[in-house]
Amino acid sequence: MGRTSDAKERILAAAQSLIEQRGFSALGVAEICKAAGVPKGSFYYFFDSKEVLALAVLDEHWAGQRAGWSRVLSGDAPPLERLRRLFEETEAEQRAGQQSCGTVSGCLFGNLTLEMSNQTEAIRERLQQIFEAQVDMVEEVVAEARQDGEVTVSDSREAARSVVAQLEGQVLFAKLYNNTQRLDALWENCLALLGATAPGAAHRAGASLV
Amino acid sequence: MGRTSDAKERILAAAQSLIEQRGFSALGVAEICKAAGVPKGSFYYFFDSKEVLALAVLDEHWAGQRAGWSRVLSGDAPPLERLRRLFEETEAEQRAGQQSCGTVSGCLFGNLTLEMSNQTEAIRERLQQIFEAQVDMVEEVVAEARQDGEVTVSDSREAARSVVAQLEGQVLFAKLYNNTQRLDALWENCLALLGATAPGAAHRAGASLV
Repeated sequence: MGRTSDAKERILAAAQSLIEQRGFSALGVAEICKAAGVPKGSFYYFFDSKEVLALAVLDEHWAGQRAGWSRVLSGDAPPLERLRRLFEETEAEQRAGQQSCGTVSGCLFGNLTLEMSNQTEAIRERLQQIFEAQVDMVEEVVAEARQDGEVTVSDSREAARSVVAQLEGQVLFAKLYNNTQRLDALWENCLALLGATAPGAAHRAGASLV
Repeated sequence: MGRTSDAKERILAAAQSLIEQRGFSALGVAEICKAAGVPKGSFYYFFDSKEVLALAVLDEHWAGQRAGWSRVLSGDAPPLERLRRLFEETEAEQRAGQQSCGTVSGCLFGNLTLEMSNQTEAIRERLQQIFEAQVDMVEEVVAEARQDGEVTVSDSREAARSVVAQLEGQVLFAKLYNNTQRLDALWENCLALLGATAPGAAHRAGASLV
């Protein structure tokens, strides 16, 4: 097939799928090329090294996820309601992955953080940027909820970090137990971490809060 | 050195250290034996496979950690105070690891969950048992705090899961940013997740809570 116009996309897709199944360290370039159906020469035409490929996989996955997060988090719904939708979509996405490949694959960024961040500074740095961007997006919504008096937390950024950390921790358990229902707790935990009231808080405009 | 009496311990120690640095998949038996200073024959005398070694590393690490958790969580201090000490000790341990090897290595169980749980059912099962045991220990303390009226959460087990998930998520960030101060948030987040009051809650016997 050689350097067909979609060879790069096929390599990226195959690499992401293989990374989700078996992590990054254990993968070889030959295996990735075989799964992508491209000759090895194509790989090195597009990517100087496995590390460059890993960065490209991270960038592509984040581009897709950022668009999804942005869509969910920037709507017209009340801010907490948007956060709730983020968790619902995360659960739906993990469930879809489980249905298609048999296991909950978890968060690609969390997986690679625990596998790779201590081995490659370039990957560590990229993962930091991605998680900072996630925290930025959540922080913006938390700040809105603060302005609306829906949450009592004093530091929106720190609260956003804790929400993202809870998300990563629960996704880890969803993967471990191969059970997406582990993610059901995210919404109530988010409300607790933000100092909001009962799960209905987002729906009750001007509700008095703790 | 052959099958000296401490060869098994040396293999386990070398394996744990290498797994913390580079994950499990990328390790070879030869590399582990070289780091342990034992001939390859010794490895297969003690361990049938790399997977059997991984299980032994998990068991040994958990035996040590369980003793530490048990000591901290079963003392005479008020229940929330004991949880606070658990987080402090976790942070101290990660800091000590960072000082000795230059980077925060994170949680061995979390690392192997994200790297290995979808590849090997035996490892998945063992990691599930370990995390269930952690949740058991935290749940017991949460139940005590409930009896004392210090927390308002209705389901002690679910709350314990969320506390352990938050711990895993924040340890992931401590590793990603190579910064143990990320763990400073654990105590306040734990109080929030348990529906306790301000950080001083554990110190104020009989304080009225939210």
